[in-house]
Formats: sequence, C-alpha cells, structure tokens
Amino acid sequence: MRSVTVFAPATVANVGSAFDVLGFAVAAPGDTVTVRRSATPGISISEITGDNGLLSKEPSRNTAGVSVVALLKHLQHRESGRFSDIGLEISLVKGLPIGSGLGSSSASTVAAVVAANELCGAPLSREELLPFAMEGERVACGAGHADNVAPALLGGFVLIRSYEPLDVIHLPTPSHVWVTVLSPNLELKTQDARKVLKRSVSLESAISQWGNVAALVAGIYKNDVGLMGRALEDRIVEPERAQLIPGYAAAKRAAIEAGAAGCSISGSGPSVFALTDCEKTAHRVGAAMKDAFAALDIASNSYVSQINGTGAVVTHKE
Amino acid sequence: MRSVTVFAPATVANVGSAFDVLGFAVAAPGDTVTVRRSATPGISISEITGDNGLLSKEPSRNTAGVSVVALLKHLQHRESGRFSDIGLEISLVKGLPIGSGLGSSSASTVAAVVAANELCGAPLSREELLPFAMEGERVACGAGHADNVAPALLGGFVLIRSYEPLDVIHLPTPSHVWVTVLSPNLELKTQDARKVLKRSVSLESAISQWGNVAALVAGIYKNDVGLMGRALEDRIVEPERAQLIPGYAAAKRAAIEAGAAGCSISGSGPSVFALTDCEKTAHRVGAAMKDAFAALDIASNSYVSQINGTGAVVTHKE
Repeated sequence: MRSVTVFAPATVANVGSAFDVLGFAVAAPGDTVTVRRSATPGISISEITGDNGLLSKEPSRNTAGVSVVALLKHLQHRESGRFSDIGLEISLVKGLPIGSGLGSSSASTVAAVVAANELCGAPLSREELLPFAMEGERVACGAGHADNVAPALLGGFVLIRSYEPLDVIHLPTPSHVWVTVLSPNLELKTQDARKVLKRSVSLESAISQWGNVAALVAGIYKNDVGLMGRALEDRIVEPERAQLIPGYAAAKRAAIEAGAAGCSISGSGPSVFALTDCEKTAHRVGAAMKDAFAALDIASNSYVSQINGTGAVVTHKE
Repeated sequence: MRSVTVFAPATVANVGSAFDVLGFAVAAPGDTVTVRRSATPGISISEITGDNGLLSKEPSRNTAGVSVVALLKHLQHRESGRFSDIGLEISLVKGLPIGSGLGSSSASTVAAVVAANELCGAPLSREELLPFAMEGERVACGAGHADNVAPALLGGFVLIRSYEPLDVIHLPTPSHVWVTVLSPNLELKTQDARKVLKRSVSLESAISQWGNVAALVAGIYKNDVGLMGRALEDRIVEPERAQLIPGYAAAKRAAIEAGAAGCSISGSGPSVFALTDCEKTAHRVGAAMKDAFAALDIASNSYVSQINGTGAVVTHKE
C-alpha cells in the first residue's frame, strides 16, 4: 500500500445542555486527507487546499501533523525499529470551514491519523487512536478535548465521562433523528467563546442542567427526538455564548417555528444545529435559519443529514 | 370492593451524581397501607404502627392523608357527585425507618394513593397518580419533590427532567445490578441536609457532575454496573453531606474494598447504598458497611435486593 485517503466528518460538540461532555458526528461536510509513503524519512505536509491559506504546513504547528507524529512515535516505540525510517507525506482537502464550531481541526486530525494507521497496516484500533488524535486538539485549542475528535473517529454520539482517566462511552445512534447544521459566515475563536463563561454557576441551574443532560442521553437511547429536543435546554452556557453570535436568537426562534424539536449552538459557535424528526422538516428548518441570518446580511451554509454512525471512513487505497 | 392493601417500596433518591433528578426503587423494606370503605364520609386515619408514635393521624398533617384527600377532591371534581359521600379509612404499617433517607414518607403516600384509587375503581393510571402523591411530599419536605415518589409509584429508575412542566422519564430496569442499602440508626432531617449545600458551584465541578450523570444513565441502559458505579462520583453534594453522617467515609471505603462498583448516600442520608454485580457480593458489602458503623457503636440494618422494576403492588383486596 502506498497511499490511503480518509474522509472524516464534521461534529457537533457541546450538545445543548451537555456542554464539554458530549459530541456527535454528521454525514457532511467533512475533511479529506491522503497520506502517502515518501522516500524521505519523517512527516511532511505537501498540500492543503480549502483553508484560505490559514493552516501551517509545518507538521509541529498543524493539528493533523502533530497527531501523526505522535502516532508514529508510539508505533516506533512499540514495535522497535519497524517504523524508524518511514516517511509519510500528508495532503489535506478542507471541506469544513475553519473556526466554525463544527470540529474543523478534529476532522483533519482524525482523517490523518486513521489514514496513517491504515498505511502502517492498521496496528491500532479506532479506540486506540483517540489519544493521538487528542494530541492535535491540544495544539488547536490549548487543551486535549475529545468531544469533537471522538465522534469524528468513532461516529454516532460519544460521551466523555472523564479525562483522567480517559473514560469514553459510545452511545447508540438514534435512527429517527435528522440534523440541520447552519454555518454562518462569522468567525469565532474557541478561546474567545471560553472567556465569556462564568467560573461558577448556581446549584439550582446546575441541577436543571444535569437533569437535561440525563434526559438527553435517555432520548438518544429511546430514539425520541422530542425528548432530545426538550433536553437541549441549556441555562448555563448558551445564554452567555448567544451574545457572541449576531442573529442566533432569531435563527433559533425560526428553527423552532419551522418545526425543530430543539436548537442550540454547535461547539463554541458560530454554527447552529437543530434536531428534527424528518428530512423535509430538517430542510425547512435550514431555510428558516438561513433567512434569519440573511436578514442581518450574514450569508450561511446549511447541511442536512442524519446522525453519522460510522465516523471516519477510508475512501481510497492504492 | 371494601378494602385494598398496597405495599410500596423504599426508594433511593439523589443517586450519587444525579442529585435531585433521579431515583430508583428497591424490593424491601417498604410500607403497607390498607384503605377501607367507611360509613362516615371523608378521610380518616385509624391506625399507624411501626412509627414509634412519630406520625400524625390527622389527615391534613399526614403525607398519606394529604395525598388521598387531594386525589378524592380531584375525582369528585372530575366525576361530579360520584365520590361526594365516600368515606375512606386508612391504616398504615411502617416498615421503613422514618428520616432514614429511604423515601419513608413517599412509600406511605404512594401506597395510600394507589390503594384509594383502586378502591374507587382505578379511574387514574399510575402516571396520573403522581401529582397527588407529590402533594404529600409537599407536607413532608416543604417542596413537591418527585424523585422518591415517582420510583415508589412506577418502579425502576425514574428521571425528573423538569418540574414546570412536570417531565418524568421512566428508564429501563438493569437486571444485572444488585443494591445494598444500609440504614444506620441515626436521624437526619431533609431540611438540615439541604442547609449544608452551597448555593453555587464551580463550572468545572458542574461539568464533571453532568458528565457523570450522563454516564449513569448510559450505564442503566447498558446494564453495566461498573459504569454505573464509576458514574456515581459526586463532587458537589456528597462531600458536604458526608460530614453529617458519622462513619460514612469508612463505610464507603469498606463497601468498595468488599467489591462494590460504587457507593453513595441515599436521599439526604443517613442511609447509604452500594451497587454490585451479584447477590453474594451485595451481602458481603452490607456486612462490611455494618462493621464500619459498628466500630463507631452505631447499629444499622442492611437490605439487599435487585432494582424493583414494579413499584407499588396491590397485595390484598376484599
């Protein structure tokens, strides 16, 4: 095998009430990474398209590069000598807008790590690749979050119970749920979105929040989009972050009026997601949210899909 | 039908991390209530045993009495005239220690409401009886909590997502789980246990808590006692309340050493519960916790059962 191409999907983290603990994958958009054997030992990034020149081709400053370097180092250590002279050349096609709250860096990282592992003969399982993909997030966000990386890698809904020790729980993929993702042309940095959060919350709000989180997980298991929609209610994070996204309140209202069971901010924004029970309503919700942003002269892209139960997929090998 | 007898079980609320939102029923102990037709119109309480004289026989000051009065008032209003002259006499056998954190008032209330409804020809479903049983809790606790009442009434694990509007979600009953409940001879009032709670919590602790709550619900669905045990971890309420229960820290340590997957305070204490994966371990855990309290000269009762998936049951009719 000389080259492997992998597609990894966009992901929605901070799922309403489940801030910082839950994420899920959608079908599209996503990033595509090809990793090729190279005669020169070491990792290089040969090409990046679709990033408007924003990403570095220096492996130590690129999330995909950092993760593949970490993976290779592990494999060299584990199987002494076997991968010591290996050369890998990464090329990356960004399908996902950067800084949109759709797990852009996670998609590139996961695609690169899955492709590199495959090219090395797939020595690690998907679950075993998670810590290496998290290394890339450490570069992108300053912390090794897993709530975008894990669903991009594993598919479906993934719950992160704890980081030390890492406790990742794969939930079932509800088949009755359609997701509308709306990505307005606004840029918002994760770090800025973190700054608006208060450091403490009232016990009363926290109880309400974990009641909703519990109901959200129950809704996922029951395949009940109405319950999931009600349980997105977030009294803690959404009120603070909504202020950073012009048009969010109107878009959410429009989504609910168009039939969405629930609506919230994707990741740290500015993208917005809504849950519905059928494809037709999901498209209507997308159009309604697009109109709401357009009324403020903000262009946006809308994506409709079901929950992606598969995660990253190998699309080509040669 | 002239008389109906109902048994309603003990319940564990504030299930570790899921403070104020989740409760479950166990098989024993519990309270038994008989409701008889009486020639005298209105509600009376003829006999209470096992309460050491602590409970009032005045219906308006007794949780079971309050709830049956509320139920009858509703039925009289709904089916105009039909129940206007009815007389009901309640007798109550307390099997549950009062003020123990095992939902003592809820068990009496639920048993009384189910018996009265049955004696009236069962016009209401179990779910419809919930608001009336909650009326009794308002007298006992000063607030209409449902996290003991709902599992005593419906069985299994019950999640209360919200009170306004009331949103009660019945979770499945995991068949692999054994519960050890240890009730030390200490009295602790719910109101006192509420006073020790801080009004605000750090966002970081709150996030950790709702990650655990989400994992607890996933553990219930997966029938995975190990996950449920890990997910009981409560950084917010347990550290405050543990101080009110002499011997709690030692009993918890003993439970884990004896093989429990997790251990926490039942309700607002002083009872303690532990989850295990088999009956034998559950008994060993009970003995270990009993010894830990005995070392402080505190006597205790231990109960071992699986999760009670049925809730209140009619045991006799005539």
